[in-house]
Amino acid sequence: MNTIELIRKKRNGLQLNKAEIEYLIENYTNRSIPDYQFSALLMAILLKGMNPDETAVLTNSMLNSGKIIDLSSFKGFKIDKHSTGGVGDKTSLVLAPIVASAGIYVPMISGRGLGHTGGTLDKLESIPGFKTDLSLSESKKVLKKCGAVLIGQTKEIAPADKLIYALRDVTATVESIPLITASIMSKKLAEGIDGLVLDIKTGNGAFMRSDKESIELANSLIHTAKSFNKRVIAFITDMNQPLGNYIGNWLEVYESIQVLKGIIKNDLYTLSVKLAGAMIYLGKKAKSFQEGEQVAKRLINSGKAFNKFLEIVELQGGDINYINNPYKYPKPKYSKKIHWVENGFINEMNTFQIGIASLELGAGRITKDDVIDHKAGIVLYKKIGDSVIKGDLICELHSDSKTNIKTSEQMIINSIRFSRTKPLIPKLIKKIIR
Amino acid sequence: MNTIELIRKKRNGLQLNKAEIEYLIENYTNRSIPDYQFSALLMAILLKGMNPDETAVLTNSMLNSGKIIDLSSFKGFKIDKHSTGGVGDKTSLVLAPIVASAGIYVPMISGRGLGHTGGTLDKLESIPGFKTDLSLSESKKVLKKCGAVLIGQTKEIAPADKLIYALRDVTATVESIPLITASIMSKKLAEGIDGLVLDIKTGNGAFMRSDKESIELANSLIHTAKSFNKRVIAFITDMNQPLGNYIGNWLEVYESIQVLKGIIKNDLYTLSVKLAGAMIYLGKKAKSFQEGEQVAKRLINSGKAFNKFLEIVELQGGDINYINNPYKYPKPKYSKKIHWVENGFINEMNTFQIGIASLELGAGRITKDDVIDHKAGIVLYKKIGDSVIKGDLICELHSDSKTNIKTSEQMIINSIRFSRTKPLIPKLIKKIIR
Repeated sequence: MNTIELIRKKRNGLQLNKAEIEYLIENYTNRSIPDYQFSALLMAILLKGMNPDETAVLTNSMLNSGKIIDLSSFKGFKIDKHSTGGVGDKTSLVLAPIVASAGIYVPMISGRGLGHTGGTLDKLESIPGFKTDLSLSESKKVLKKCGAVLIGQTKEIAPADKLIYALRDVTATVESIPLITASIMSKKLAEGIDGLVLDIKTGNGAFMRSDKESIELANSLIHTAKSFNKRVIAFITDMNQPLGNYIGNWLEVYESIQVLKGIIKNDLYTLSVKLAGAMIYLGKKAKSFQEGEQVAKRLINSGKAFNKFLEIVELQGGDINYINNPYKYPKPKYSKKIHWVENGFINEMNTFQIGIASLELGAGRITKDDVIDHKAGIVLYKKIGDSVIKGDLICELHSDSKTNIKTSEQMIINSIRFSRTKPLIPKLIKKIIR
Repeated sequence: MNTIELIRKKRNGLQLNKAEIEYLIENYTNRSIPDYQFSALLMAILLKGMNPDETAVLTNSMLNSGKIIDLSSFKGFKIDKHSTGGVGDKTSLVLAPIVASAGIYVPMISGRGLGHTGGTLDKLESIPGFKTDLSLSESKKVLKKCGAVLIGQTKEIAPADKLIYALRDVTATVESIPLITASIMSKKLAEGIDGLVLDIKTGNGAFMRSDKESIELANSLIHTAKSFNKRVIAFITDMNQPLGNYIGNWLEVYESIQVLKGIIKNDLYTLSVKLAGAMIYLGKKAKSFQEGEQVAKRLINSGKAFNKFLEIVELQGGDINYINNPYKYPKPKYSKKIHWVENGFINEMNTFQIGIASLELGAGRITKDDVIDHKAGIVLYKKIGDSVIKGDLICELHSDSKTNIKTSEQMIINSIRFSRTKPLIPKLIKKIIR
């Protein structure tokens, strides 16, 4: 097969067949096809698209570039959740213990912070001792013991995706529905799961800005999951403000603990029990979403979900002392309270900017080599629609760097818009597609 | 400036400004921008286009990546011709001596065979001793002495184009009007010319298959040339059959000699005097095309054009013995005459296939490392519209390889279609644009 002819074919808007896509992925992964040819192909795919069949074949080729975890010895349903990422999105930490304590296996492979968003692995690693780089056999042991495991992508899983993702990142070819679909699904399918709940974040803090794009991505992911005979549900959810009230790695673990204990009942709680409900329903431990949601709430109220979290943390090497006594966690050197100067309502948030401000504080990496400060971040005391009286505490910033708090403070102030009248509150769950 | 953002901008169909295009070309040429980013950009340009202003800026950036030959000390008009390439297209060899003997400077920079087409440099090098790799100062001396010089692209001229062209070739990004325009014009403008005649070959043996594409390219080239204040005329000419009757390097030199001597008056002669007429008109040595054409014909009839050719060959180190006595040239080991088996007319030729057949005989390179056999090639005794009687000689193949003659013979037979009734003869000059 001739690589140039295949690039030309896609460039001309034609469909690539199975053998052609397999040839491209196999030979890019073994480094026979050079980056400069593959990036031209990626741009052609981004601009000319791929139909659902091509996308499924692409996913399959990328999946088969590595190992598929064999969980056939696990009797019971295996499920995961994938979120497209947003600011303050820590649902994985809440969902894994709830769903595992409902008797469904949750083999979860997560990522690191990307762009303005945080990453589940970085959050988990804020727990002293917590290991996310377990080997596949160690992971299986944890999964066997407690029903859930939260790890990072290993080298063995979808190596094609790792290579392609790195190339997309530097060639402006990230924003392509078929490429995003194949990237997500090749990794998720490698987990050996039977079902998947998708959380497609939409809004000014998400990678998908419009409902239209999100629905398109959801449909593409669903089509691909179904072509592999997986049970799947997609939620289109709001990301026009951060999810929950805490942004930053340890701060988000703290908020997850509070939700798992049933102490905090904010939007993070609401979304978590909805997503958990869908996972419990797909995992056949409930007859409907609603019933699944009730099961999730009961598992929180009974303390089972929180205990499961302790179990997971302990099995993965984390110090549960901090989970049981979060106030013992080291404090950041500096904190800064932001009070408001007018009466009114919070009207709008530039969620992307808030994400960037939290990176600035040390909660994420601005360059590849940055070291994350796990204590750094933002606590939001107000969200969209909340009334504010002059002098009210709006939020609090935490960092080990005074300078960064200053920069970040200005960014936060610029990110929040007020109004005199109460605004419409964005709907948390915009659509459910199955 | 951020390369990824610029790729994204073009990918989204937006116009790149002067500073952005200059940044991209400068940093690709100095190897700061890696191939994989530039190829993604090239694909975005191919699929999203560039407007005439962007194309002119791109041309200018590529031109300024190297040296612009300073011919200001030459008193008189400087002109060149550019052909987009076809099979049997040897007009450069005929035009340079005609136009130079009309008192106009012809500093001609030519290329090598590309794909199924031959290259002027390869043809000239079939003349024993002929040097095409003169330095710029040697070139200027030859140009001063005889009014014309025929050389290859030096390292100093448009190095950006050399790099970009090599990348386009392996990433399926050749067929883009703005990229083709910038590639052609950056090299031609570097010659220090005042005017340019364009020969846009169109048809099944050309890179542009349709009149529409050719006219689009012509307009783009004309717009760019004019934006640099150059006098310019474009001819859209037919390439649905080879030009002239000889294909292959020495064979084409031989045919050019015959045309310059006024012995052969075929389509090569007709097109050559038309193009020469346009060059003489642009060079202000005639008041109209028609008058220019008459001047060209007179220069052939008087023997001045042929003598000028001898002068050029001698000054560039070629052995004029072979020009004066072509029958002394070494003969190929094998020849094969193809006779036809039916009565009728030649109706159609697959010119691309005929070009490939001539490569097969040894007249061009199939892989980069092939060595050209200058004696190899095809002599066509019949062209489209010619009547054929059973047993007539259609063409003759020449090669040092018996096997290659066999392969080639079958290709030629498959390339020529016959009909019972006289077909329409393709119009040699389809359109003139200025």
